[in-house]
Amino acid sequence: MNRKLRMGMVGGGLDAFIGAIHRKAASLDDRIDLVCGAFSSNPEKSRAAGEAFNLHPHRVYGSYEEMFRKEKKLPGDLRMDFVSIVTPNHMHFAPAKLALESGFHVMVDKPMTWNLDEAKQLGQVAKRKKLLVGLTHAYTGYPMVKEAKNIVASGRLGTIRKVYVSYTQGWLSTPVERTGNKQAEWRTDPKRSGAAGAVGDIGTHAANLSEYITGLKIASVCAQLNRVVKGRALDDDASMLLTFDNKATGVLVCTQVAAGEENNLSIRVFGELGGLSWSQENPNSLEVKWLDRPKEVYRTGWPFLSQEARANTRTPSGHPEGYLEAFANIYANFSRAVHAFKPGKDLDGKKFDYPSIAEGIRGMAFIEAAVKSSRGKQKWIGIGK
Amino acid sequence: MNRKLRMGMVGGGLDAFIGAIHRKAASLDDRIDLVCGAFSSNPEKSRAAGEAFNLHPHRVYGSYEEMFRKEKKLPGDLRMDFVSIVTPNHMHFAPAKLALESGFHVMVDKPMTWNLDEAKQLGQVAKRKKLLVGLTHAYTGYPMVKEAKNIVASGRLGTIRKVYVSYTQGWLSTPVERTGNKQAEWRTDPKRSGAAGAVGDIGTHAANLSEYITGLKIASVCAQLNRVVKGRALDDDASMLLTFDNKATGVLVCTQVAAGEENNLSIRVFGELGGLSWSQENPNSLEVKWLDRPKEVYRTGWPFLSQEARANTRTPSGHPEGYLEAFANIYANFSRAVHAFKPGKDLDGKKFDYPSIAEGIRGMAFIEAAVKSSRGKQKWIGIGK
Amino acid sequence: MNRKLRMGMVGGGLDAFIGAIHRKAASLDDRIDLVCGAFSSNPEKSRAAGEAFNLHPHRVYGSYEEMFRKEKKLPGDLRMDFVSIVTPNHMHFAPAKLALESGFHVMVDKPMTWNLDEAKQLGQVAKRKKLLVGLTHAYTGYPMVKEAKNIVASGRLGTIRKVYVSYTQGWLSTPVERTGNKQAEWRTDPKRSGAAGAVGDIGTHAANLSEYITGLKIASVCAQLNRVVKGRALDDDASMLLTFDNKATGVLVCTQVAAGEENNLSIRVFGELGGLSWSQENPNSLEVKWLDRPKEVYRTGWPFLSQEARANTRTPSGHPEGYLEAFANIYANFSRAVHAFKPGKDLDGKKFDYPSIAEGIRGMAFIEAAVKSSRGKQKWIGIGK
Amino acid sequence: MNRKLRMGMVGGGLDAFIGAIHRKAASLDDRIDLVCGAFSSNPEKSRAAGEAFNLHPHRVYGSYEEMFRKEKKLPGDLRMDFVSIVTPNHMHFAPAKLALESGFHVMVDKPMTWNLDEAKQLGQVAKRKKLLVGLTHAYTGYPMVKEAKNIVASGRLGTIRKVYVSYTQGWLSTPVERTGNKQAEWRTDPKRSGAAGAVGDIGTHAANLSEYITGLKIASVCAQLNRVVKGRALDDDASMLLTFDNKATGVLVCTQVAAGEENNLSIRVFGELGGLSWSQENPNSLEVKWLDRPKEVYRTGWPFLSQEARANTRTPSGHPEGYLEAFANIYANFSRAVHAFKPGKDLDGKKFDYPSIAEGIRGMAFIEAAVKSSRGKQKWIGIGK
Repeated sequence: MNRKLRMGMVGGGLDAFIGAIHRKAASLDDRIDLVCGAFSSNPEKSRAAGEAFNLHPHRVYGSYEEMFRKEKKLPGDLRMDFVSIVTPNHMHFAPAKLALESGFHVMVDKPMTWNLDEAKQLGQVAKRKKLLVGLTHAYTGYPMVKEAKNIVASGRLGTIRKVYVSYTQGWLSTPVERTGNKQAEWRTDPKRSGAAGAVGDIGTHAANLSEYITGLKIASVCAQLNRVVKGRALDDDASMLLTFDNKATGVLVCTQVAAGEENNLSIRVFGELGGLSWSQENPNSLEVKWLDRPKEVYRTGWPFLSQEARANTRTPSGHPEGYLEAFANIYANFSRAVHAFKPGKDLDGKKFDYPSIAEGIRGMAFIEAAVKSSRGKQKWIGIGK
Repeated sequence: MNRKLRMGMVGGGLDAFIGAIHRKAASLDDRIDLVCGAFSSNPEKSRAAGEAFNLHPHRVYGSYEEMFRKEKKLPGDLRMDFVSIVTPNHMHFAPAKLALESGFHVMVDKPMTWNLDEAKQLGQVAKRKKLLVGLTHAYTGYPMVKEAKNIVASGRLGTIRKVYVSYTQGWLSTPVERTGNKQAEWRTDPKRSGAAGAVGDIGTHAANLSEYITGLKIASVCAQLNRVVKGRALDDDASMLLTFDNKATGVLVCTQVAAGEENNLSIRVFGELGGLSWSQENPNSLEVKWLDRPKEVYRTGWPFLSQEARANTRTPSGHPEGYLEAFANIYANFSRAVHAFKPGKDLDGKKFDYPSIAEGIRGMAFIEAAVKSSRGKQKWIGIGK
Repeated sequence: MNRKLRMGMVGGGLDAFIGAIHRKAASLDDRIDLVCGAFSSNPEKSRAAGEAFNLHPHRVYGSYEEMFRKEKKLPGDLRMDFVSIVTPNHMHFAPAKLALESGFHVMVDKPMTWNLDEAKQLGQVAKRKKLLVGLTHAYTGYPMVKEAKNIVASGRLGTIRKVYVSYTQGWLSTPVERTGNKQAEWRTDPKRSGAAGAVGDIGTHAANLSEYITGLKIASVCAQLNRVVKGRALDDDASMLLTFDNKATGVLVCTQVAAGEENNLSIRVFGELGGLSWSQENPNSLEVKWLDRPKEVYRTGWPFLSQEARANTRTPSGHPEGYLEAFANIYANFSRAVHAFKPGKDLDGKKFDYPSIAEGIRGMAFIEAAVKSSRGKQKWIGIGK
Repeated sequence: MNRKLRMGMVGGGLDAFIGAIHRKAASLDDRIDLVCGAFSSNPEKSRAAGEAFNLHPHRVYGSYEEMFRKEKKLPGDLRMDFVSIVTPNHMHFAPAKLALESGFHVMVDKPMTWNLDEAKQLGQVAKRKKLLVGLTHAYTGYPMVKEAKNIVASGRLGTIRKVYVSYTQGWLSTPVERTGNKQAEWRTDPKRSGAAGAVGDIGTHAANLSEYITGLKIASVCAQLNRVVKGRALDDDASMLLTFDNKATGVLVCTQVAAGEENNLSIRVFGELGGLSWSQENPNSLEVKWLDRPKEVYRTGWPFLSQEARANTRTPSGHPEGYLEAFANIYANFSRAVHAFKPGKDLDGKKFDYPSIAEGIRGMAFIEAAVKSSRGKQKWIGIGK
């Protein structure tokens, strides 16, 4: 086994939801240690977090600038290997850019940046510095999603014709951003979230999942973004028609006002010969239907699954794996890429199977196209490559 | 119990699929007897069918014109009470119109006519003759659909915000119309089917179901119709964004090329306070989710369901009811309307809870709008009232 | 198509639950007409029922004795072909015996008689008169049960090793027999129900289902019968260990005090190579699991199912069939046997696939063994052949 | 947050399945560090494992005796706090006893010992030393199992009447112990496994789960243990009738020869007023059925669940938690007990909600009773308190 990687963190203080997820996911496989962090723009809070995480006080920083500057000077066997950025969207670009400029690989939460322009810039920096950027599209970490991708890639379904993907939540059904919900506050604030609300927060997951499984690219969208809860400045709901680059068509739904829904990300993909369906709320099963024989149900952990699915599973079949394990797969695969790193090689995440800078840029292009389509009279808006 | 009604039939010969369904559904509750028919434009075939159905030879006719003419002259205690029209779409209007002109109530398969103009004309005739027209949107006959309608109407979900309805089939995934499948032949032929294929055949069911459950009307559509299988003259697939008359929005999907899908009609409706979901493939359960308490599952047959659901159920809970029973509910409720008939009264089906002429006209307007939206550059096309 | 059979009925007046089910099931396929009946021991009630069912007053009788005597004298083209007996258990034997003695085939509700001795006697009479006896173990009428039987018989699962069957209801969780529930009254009364309550009412269904699917016979039982609700004179709950005649073992559960359960009859069968599971509450799916490949789900209506499953289905896949259709399959298959009847031939129901006198006798032997096992100290009680 | 506990491990070398699970589970919440181990009776293998786990070579021992002896002498801020024993069953007792004698708390895999006598002895030692013993009945760690326990304890279901618990696996359907499967080898070997095979391996889980949720104790069993695969020396399959100490009755099924089954642990509990059901293969849902209102489905992560369920959940609703998280809850709760430890206090696990020495002894008594019942002619065998 390789040595454990050393991870730094930007954001993710004690009251942050996603920071804790990142830390558990990173540590699950004993491949990564959290060694330093700038957990809050408030140095007091950063220190409290570092203490709670059992970090050496010298490795808890008051700002990410300080962290990159000082970590850079540490000896190679102490210095962090990569930084994980888990701040709100508007605070992704600056630390990610500076981290790359400082010579560190970057893992960043999605959507990758605040707007498409930042994403493209970050792409330029990563390319120039020849470093790795990972993106936590965690749902692609599920073994059954990898099995689905494998089934499509094998050609067993024939040419893909239809893709239906739906991500429905209910937690923004009421204006919780006005009653103290921190998660809701920044997600509904254009200054922090970007040009889109639900489309950026969960629509990008849905778009990414559809592209990951099918191996296709969304070519254009015809979108309707809605602000359902009164007074909201960003969309909390959207639906869109899709075309893909192979002429397949589809529908993408994302909403945060489907009262009673939890975190229902579901996808159905149909080809000439059969179709598959998967849902995050029952993530260890994958249904595959055929034109001429019984429906099949694949399950996490079987020895006769694809290599990709098996490599991302920790327990034998019948032992459910969950969201943390899927999230941990993103980190584990990224960590393999870091271990194998050679400057400028395998930057696209394909070899080691993690979402990378390219997926980050596509996500921002998707947001931009959806917003443009919804605002204008033109029916279809293309997404640039 | 009322006397049994006497039904005539146009179409529905021995090799027809839907005719047999209509006959079983009509007879299930011992409320209706098939007494006569013009089962085929081929008199030989019509005769063979009548014999198989144990009809008196005098009541088996060579044409619907002959049937209406002769039945009209029979004494009141023999004469048919209404006619059921189960021919392909292009053969709905003429017999339906003539039946009404001849003084007979009409039950007709959906979509009601070949185009919107015919539908409006039929509406005029029915109004003038003050007779009843029923339409077999069979899926609204399921007890759990009626419970769903009741829950929405009660206001328990609050104002409806989102409607997702999806009807996916796979049977047209290959060009079966060219290999002898009669059902596929006429459904893919514009001359017999009308301006739309999948949209007319199953999209109208989906649209009707969404309006039935929510009590709302679809106000406009932004549609994409596709001819997925090469060489097909009509859409075999469509997706559309929807707006409703209360500002709710939604998505309607209908496809006949989702390989492996059977007859998957599913709907999810979300209001301010909760949401519900129902699927035809598991028709005896209705899920209701709430913002602040456990998900509920309602089941056919419970004594504490709404009166509407109970009245449309034949067996205690735990005894699954199926498609035939739902279909039979349309006939049973229509038969109650016929028994209670007073010229010009209750023509809209609301009192006796069956789909009527108004739903038939709306269905044709929906088809027209979807086709227009898909063909043009204009994003949204309204559906007239 | 054959001429419609003429059915008489004993019991099944207007306030009976199961009589209505029998009538709908019998008439669903247009193969059987109800032509006469002795619907109640109260002639007034019998007459009211006959009127409601649109029978000729001369064919509505004050007693079954009268019915058999008079029907026997009617000309062959009017006389009933068989009688359906839907009275409480203690009233099965006498009319069934007299019907056979009078030359009529018999369909009787389960359990076949009040005790095993009656069942054996009835077997003797049927044998002597060379007439048909059918038994409404309705659950074996489901297409997916027939598919399951076919899969086992094909040997695909290998030798059967384990059978788990469970029939759980909740409707007797409280002493409803003391608050006017007629169904509960006679079922909890030893004088009318027999030596067992739940075991006779639903345990026999479970036992029959397990033997029907596996083709095995229960060889012995180790049972525990309980009277859970205070004051009840008969078991309302039972569990038992089973051995089968091929050395397979299993468990049978039946209870009517599982509060909240509806009518949950479920079975799992495992062989050397795979297993299957089916549940009446989702009757159109059949799961088949394998040692070395993905789980399969079979669905009612597929063209590539076994001939037995297809012959017992009325609609294409995706159109759920329910309890009434399953029940109707028992009648339809029995009616085929009646049409093909030759004295003394095919009395065992195997050729035409319906439960017959042999299943009736086995059911009573099962009840007797379960009661004996529960009462005594001996661990295992054999069931005679 | 408390300091991280220091854990030692006995067994769990690189080729062990359950050792890796224990390590991941222990580390998931950042509450526990693995600091030392005797991972194999082969010192070479132990060393290789220690290296892979990044342990200091001085803390990797050649035997557990050495480990306890040396760890005892380490300063308090280095010394291990407790030891986790993950060897086969016959190797539980000796190291557990010695660990306690040496002053260390013990976490041990289930079943706790090789036979009941060892279990009782271990109980004596723990009592005398006033130290903690934890047991990894991991399935009781699921949040929805805790919610189920809470619902029963609240009295909402009324007095419990019926308990059905079933644990079905298929992995021993063929004699894999003869083809190199290490897990199967020791589990089917009486010298290493004990008096029972399936009953000890998974039957104890089922028994424990039923007692945990209901708060009842199994009073007696009537069991049938089978050796289904030819040549096996221990049961690979068992079924048993149960009585509970409140007069409730039930059924327990455990089998490892249900071909195609994965790890299907399912339980249904019924009281006077309602019932609940839970299945490990869909662990984030809990169904609750009622006599007089809709079925409810509870889901992991809801803010309105019981405190016990919420305290054992890491992510918001809609983010599935799996087997590792459940397992980790056992470790996390045990670690809380270790932190709060006062000699002789809270030894029964109730306050901190983890399975303890008492559950371990009950498990062994359950095995003994089941084996005795199966072998003898006596119908019911009591389980001592």
